[in-house]
Amino acid sequence: MLNFTVGPVMSYDDVLAVAGEQVPYFRTQEFSETILENEAFMKEFVNAPDNAKVVFITGSGTASMEAVIMNVFTAKDKLLVIDGGSFGHRFTQLCDIHHIPYTAIKPECGHTVTTDMLNEYQNKGYTGLLVNIHETSTGVLYDAQMLGDFCKSQGMLYIVDAISSFLADPLDMQKVGADVIFTGSQKVLACAPGISIIVLGERALSRVWENETKTMYLDLKDALRNAERGQTPFTPAVGILRQINVRLRQIKRNGGANTEIERISIQAKDFRNKIRELPFEIVSESLSNAVTPLHPTTASAYDIFLQLKDDYGIWICPNGGDMKDSIFRVGHFGAQTTADNDTLVMAFKDLQSKGII
Amino acid sequence: MLNFTVGPVMSYDDVLAVAGEQVPYFRTQEFSETILENEAFMKEFVNAPDNAKVVFITGSGTASMEAVIMNVFTAKDKLLVIDGGSFGHRFTQLCDIHHIPYTAIKPECGHTVTTDMLNEYQNKGYTGLLVNIHETSTGVLYDAQMLGDFCKSQGMLYIVDAISSFLADPLDMQKVGADVIFTGSQKVLACAPGISIIVLGERALSRVWENETKTMYLDLKDALRNAERGQTPFTPAVGILRQINVRLRQIKRNGGANTEIERISIQAKDFRNKIRELPFEIVSESLSNAVTPLHPTTASAYDIFLQLKDDYGIWICPNGGDMKDSIFRVGHFGAQTTADNDTLVMAFKDLQSKGII
Repeated sequence: MLNFTVGPVMSYDDVLAVAGEQVPYFRTQEFSETILENEAFMKEFVNAPDNAKVVFITGSGTASMEAVIMNVFTAKDKLLVIDGGSFGHRFTQLCDIHHIPYTAIKPECGHTVTTDMLNEYQNKGYTGLLVNIHETSTGVLYDAQMLGDFCKSQGMLYIVDAISSFLADPLDMQKVGADVIFTGSQKVLACAPGISIIVLGERALSRVWENETKTMYLDLKDALRNAERGQTPFTPAVGILRQINVRLRQIKRNGGANTEIERISIQAKDFRNKIRELPFEIVSESLSNAVTPLHPTTASAYDIFLQLKDDYGIWICPNGGDMKDSIFRVGHFGAQTTADNDTLVMAFKDLQSKGII
Repeated sequence: MLNFTVGPVMSYDDVLAVAGEQVPYFRTQEFSETILENEAFMKEFVNAPDNAKVVFITGSGTASMEAVIMNVFTAKDKLLVIDGGSFGHRFTQLCDIHHIPYTAIKPECGHTVTTDMLNEYQNKGYTGLLVNIHETSTGVLYDAQMLGDFCKSQGMLYIVDAISSFLADPLDMQKVGADVIFTGSQKVLACAPGISIIVLGERALSRVWENETKTMYLDLKDALRNAERGQTPFTPAVGILRQINVRLRQIKRNGGANTEIERISIQAKDFRNKIRELPFEIVSESLSNAVTPLHPTTASAYDIFLQLKDDYGIWICPNGGDMKDSIFRVGHFGAQTTADNDTLVMAFKDLQSKGII
């Protein structure tokens, strides 16, 4: 199957090779070195400050969203949440569950957040901002620098969920002033799903150490203590952490973060050029390199997903809920090439010639 | 490396084959069928009642311990916790974090819980019992039937953490009257770590539906709603769930749960027979088939672990904390044979001939 979803995506051969090996025992110096190397690469690729720390959570991206909310914030905070799609909305639900006061900023579907929208919340006592910098559900990339500048001017903590944006779009932790950045194993890292990775800067770390522990599994204090020696409190997804190591080394060997971002950008532009004649509308005014969200004007988005899966051996990414029939997404990361874009576009054209789209 | 730890352990070839494949997109009917088949096998192998439900958590066994504590119990409960080692103690820590009243029963290290010890707690308003039925840290297997009979007589919920005991020792959910049983992917299932599996009976399910949601990632209501259609709320460790499917089918093909339990029992007995002349003392009065916990009388347990790892290509399982130098463990599950036991015993004898043990 050709996989154009937003994760899991196609892995590179050397990642698959390590995935097929026996998983080693992990309470060893050898495995600690793997973890510490992963930490160093993660810090390099987001340009984290030297004193930043990295933890590896065995869980989905949502586990990291919840870990950050529970460990960094308390009921004494007052947060701004960019609620522009299902992942932004998830942040509001997490704040509800953990009784953390917040205000949701709701850009219209497909639209970004403007300085004017933000400025309404100036000098009103907000202590932090939560954003999925690429709202994966609708394919909107927010302006990380503008949001960071706002947070800086207000003395707010700045939490950047970069799950599907890390290594797809430029993101410099020091330049934008992010306090926390996190991602997942199955996005641009193109490994199996099961690990999410959190990079914490100094201010966020202080919060973690000050706050009361409210969970064992998602406790970042315990994770940080273990991370000092390249370990985790509980048995992690050892195999996936080894895949991540192979992949981070590959990215470094190929030229580092910017080379990978450029590769995905070329992949995205190529696809967007090739679909100009098709009956699809791009539904985001601010695209990430990671994903193209499309509204098919002549057919159900979900029917197109099913047809491509069953008759062409291709997965595109369906949307859920209200957007199921109106929007599908095409991801541009993982082990895909512009020739794969040709195959997908030919399948679309074939559906068109059959009168299906 | 020959792997005699308690997880991750050596996987069978057909599990490794699927581990080395591309991970598929998962919001599909095809993947739902895999999950639903996994659920059916899990219910069959613990003899769960028809109305039991199974959820698959992307996380370590501790994620499931915490999920059960948070979803099934509240501050209105009063629990008995068997605190006979580091995993039993973890249950007490979870109760502390989530403000659930409990009394810890602390058998001496290496000893089991007797009826007399339990009877002290009769008719004192306890509402549930938490036990790691095989306390993996010390290798003590508790009597699941005796504990279940006590819970039944007291109308208590009976929670069985069978992480390292599932398919190593007989465990019949209906016969012992367990309300919850859970395990992990890297134990007898011999897959990569990253998934834990919870089987919930009717009484536990009622508790989950009644109780307030206190977490998103470990929320069992949401997991159960998604499980109805063979899905999970968040992107799961899809690759590991596929490995589990291959392995559960293999176990079924080989004759089912009892055949696997018998195989591991033979593996354990063979090892225990072969070490009789070695300077090791078995430190548990109630052994599981899963693990043999040993106290080396002539050398540091941790030094033996390091020697075997570095000079013989063999992992045994070190203990942590206070027991680091006094106890190591040898696991009997995963893709190992009695010939592998010979290799390990020959390595021990070689260390003996060198005067190291």
